[in-house]
Amino acid sequence: MTDLVIRNVRPLGKAATDIAVAGGRIAAMGTNLPANGALVEDGGGALLLPGLIEAHTHLDKTLLGMDWVENVVASDIRSKIDNEREMKGVLGLDPALQSARQVVMSIARGTTAIRSHVDIDTTYGLAGLEGVAATRERYADVIDLQIVAFPQSGMMIRKGTVELMDEALRQGADIVGGLDPCAIDFDPKGHLDVVFDLAVRHGKPIDIHLHEPGELGLFTFGMILERTRAHGLAGKVTVSHAFSLGMNDYLRVGRLLDEIAGAGVMLMSTGPAGVPVPPLIRALDAGIAFCSGTDGMRDLWNPYGNADMLQRAQILADRNNLSRDAEVERALDVCTFGGAAVMGLPDYGLKVGDFADLVLVEGRTLTEAVVTLPQRKLVVKRGRVVARDGEALVEAA
Amino acid sequence: MTDLVIRNVRPLGKAATDIAVAGGRIAAMGTNLPANGALVEDGGGALLLPGLIEAHTHLDKTLLGMDWVENVVASDIRSKIDNEREMKGVLGLDPALQSARQVVMSIARGTTAIRSHVDIDTTYGLAGLEGVAATRERYADVIDLQIVAFPQSGMMIRKGTVELMDEALRQGADIVGGLDPCAIDFDPKGHLDVVFDLAVRHGKPIDIHLHEPGELGLFTFGMILERTRAHGLAGKVTVSHAFSLGMNDYLRVGRLLDEIAGAGVMLMSTGPAGVPVPPLIRALDAGIAFCSGTDGMRDLWNPYGNADMLQRAQILADRNNLSRDAEVERALDVCTFGGAAVMGLPDYGLKVGDFADLVLVEGRTLTEAVVTLPQRKLVVKRGRVVARDGEALVEAA
Ligand SMILES: [Zn+2]
Ligand SMILES: [Zn+2]
Repeated sequence: MTDLVIRNVRPLGKAATDIAVAGGRIAAMGTNLPANGALVEDGGGALLLPGLIEAHTHLDKTLLGMDWVENVVASDIRSKIDNEREMKGVLGLDPALQSARQVVMSIARGTTAIRSHVDIDTTYGLAGLEGVAATRERYADVIDLQIVAFPQSGMMIRKGTVELMDEALRQGADIVGGLDPCAIDFDPKGHLDVVFDLAVRHGKPIDIHLHEPGELGLFTFGMILERTRAHGLAGKVTVSHAFSLGMNDYLRVGRLLDEIAGAGVMLMSTGPAGVPVPPLIRALDAGIAFCSGTDGMRDLWNPYGNADMLQRAQILADRNNLSRDAEVERALDVCTFGGAAVMGLPDYGLKVGDFADLVLVEGRTLTEAVVTLPQRKLVVKRGRVVARDGEALVEAA
Repeated sequence: MTDLVIRNVRPLGKAATDIAVAGGRIAAMGTNLPANGALVEDGGGALLLPGLIEAHTHLDKTLLGMDWVENVVASDIRSKIDNEREMKGVLGLDPALQSARQVVMSIARGTTAIRSHVDIDTTYGLAGLEGVAATRERYADVIDLQIVAFPQSGMMIRKGTVELMDEALRQGADIVGGLDPCAIDFDPKGHLDVVFDLAVRHGKPIDIHLHEPGELGLFTFGMILERTRAHGLAGKVTVSHAFSLGMNDYLRVGRLLDEIAGAGVMLMSTGPAGVPVPPLIRALDAGIAFCSGTDGMRDLWNPYGNADMLQRAQILADRNNLSRDAEVERALDVCTFGGAAVMGLPDYGLKVGDFADLVLVEGRTLTEAVVTLPQRKLVVKRGRVVARDGEALVEAA
């Protein structure tokens, strides 16, 4: 039985077609599909994209909807971490409510799956996990949400954190996080042995924040690659940020990209303007699964961010000096298929049989949509309309 | 006689006030100003900014409103220049219409003054200047428009261009442009001697595009500084882009910034993500007048851009790793007072007696406005309402 028919849409900018949805999946594509009593939406010739994928954010600590907090913190990571841990308590930040607010914003902008890192530390214990897990359950019908247990304040340098990470993974965190094994934890061997041990024991993937610059980052990256191969974790390990791959050494970066592809390690870059970034096109050409995300937004680190993964494609493209349409489309691909690959989302795409996670936007071409950032006309999750004309049909409050 | 009273606005985020306009200027500020029969607008507690300043763009060649053109050009500047010169003819680009389209978009976003470079070359002669000059006249009541005669295709390498530049300045171009004296023209002495000679003879300021990287750019910059001092042109010379000031040599860049401040040379940066940029805060601290702009948008170089100078403040801040509110406000200042200083706009600001070029936006703080990019509630040029709720009250067609 057909549940929904969307007429006159252009999948990824190709020729106009109708699309029929049944049982949450794409049941048919073609012209003049029968409605069979299903809900019919007029696509009006809009572009049809698969659901946008937010593969790296921090739902537990956005300040969305709260009082404005003036940012006066120093710019180094350690100061930002310590300031945030203190201020979360002062502000009485509620991870369940805050994550719900960002999820609703994401849905309005066409995101159908989110991977969120969630702070695990000895000050707040598992409170962040509990809050975001409540949001995961509450919105289970309208968005896929993966939770990374993330030792934001350090792991080896804060006694008790390893045990909390272990407990978080038992209580429903989906992925083992990590953070700057050298620059924050000052014990790369200890840090990475714990991360990989947790992953193996819990049978869960890994996603490590690696801000370490230049040679330091390359050193740590080598240790991650070695352990990924040793434990047979190809396709299960993501390195987020990887600023060191933006270093100015063409040959060495190229060799490392090949090694990363060979080990089946995946990359995440938000395309930040002010730091070196992994070279997007080279990484894709090397065959590396590559995703992107908003990262922390409107939080105690920085005021920016709007959870728009279509704009993220623009930022990524611009950061990588991509002006040609064909290149801009590859940046968009990172925010759709790339994210789905890294998150391991099954049956993702625009083929018959795939889950019906769909976004309609105006635009003559995909590149025009990336440039103009039109309102999302319609967002569909598993066949259900979850946003229309830029507004989510679910609420946060 | 009072022409307009706007009630309940917060100038640059400060305490709420009314503002009265007479004869195109701010006549009074204070609470409960008498209307005296003037038009009254309710500011509703919005932030009040002075008009946004677009200090570097290319009105003559945006493709806004035209058919979508797939970008397939190579990424080097020379290829982009040659491709553009050829395609402008193929597409039948109309500088008067295209500049009008971008001007209307700018007004809708709160821009009250624009400096536009306009191509001068031996293929199209002064056609670009004539088109943009027509737009300047057509919109004279609603926006200030300065025209830079810009030898986009090179000057010394294309015989006849110097004479066209001279003619352009006679026919109404306001400013002498220049472009990469080494990297494009291969004759820094020849190029700069012509530029400064034209400026002196016509009594007009200078604005040079300088994309040259690293040591090459610093070399050219030194020649510009020397000529600025020799001709007594402090406050009359702008260097746009100045990527070389983003080089990684802290001490040399610092010394050059001091020299630039001393010579009264001004800087323009769009805050591009993919190339080195002049360090904004250091330049401001050195006392350099600093402005920003959209640069070319939706054109044959790149598909990006939306003429929003509030977003440009965000891009500039993000590119310079500015997260603290006080720093973000300095980036916004570049897009208001900085632009006005570089363009030499008289009586610009929010004091009684200044021209009433005003923008109202929602936001608890200036930084929130830079982050959220709210629609412009009201835009006023010389006391006249020119845009409301994100829509310009003038048309392009
Ligand atoms: Zn992160
Ligand atoms: Zn330019």
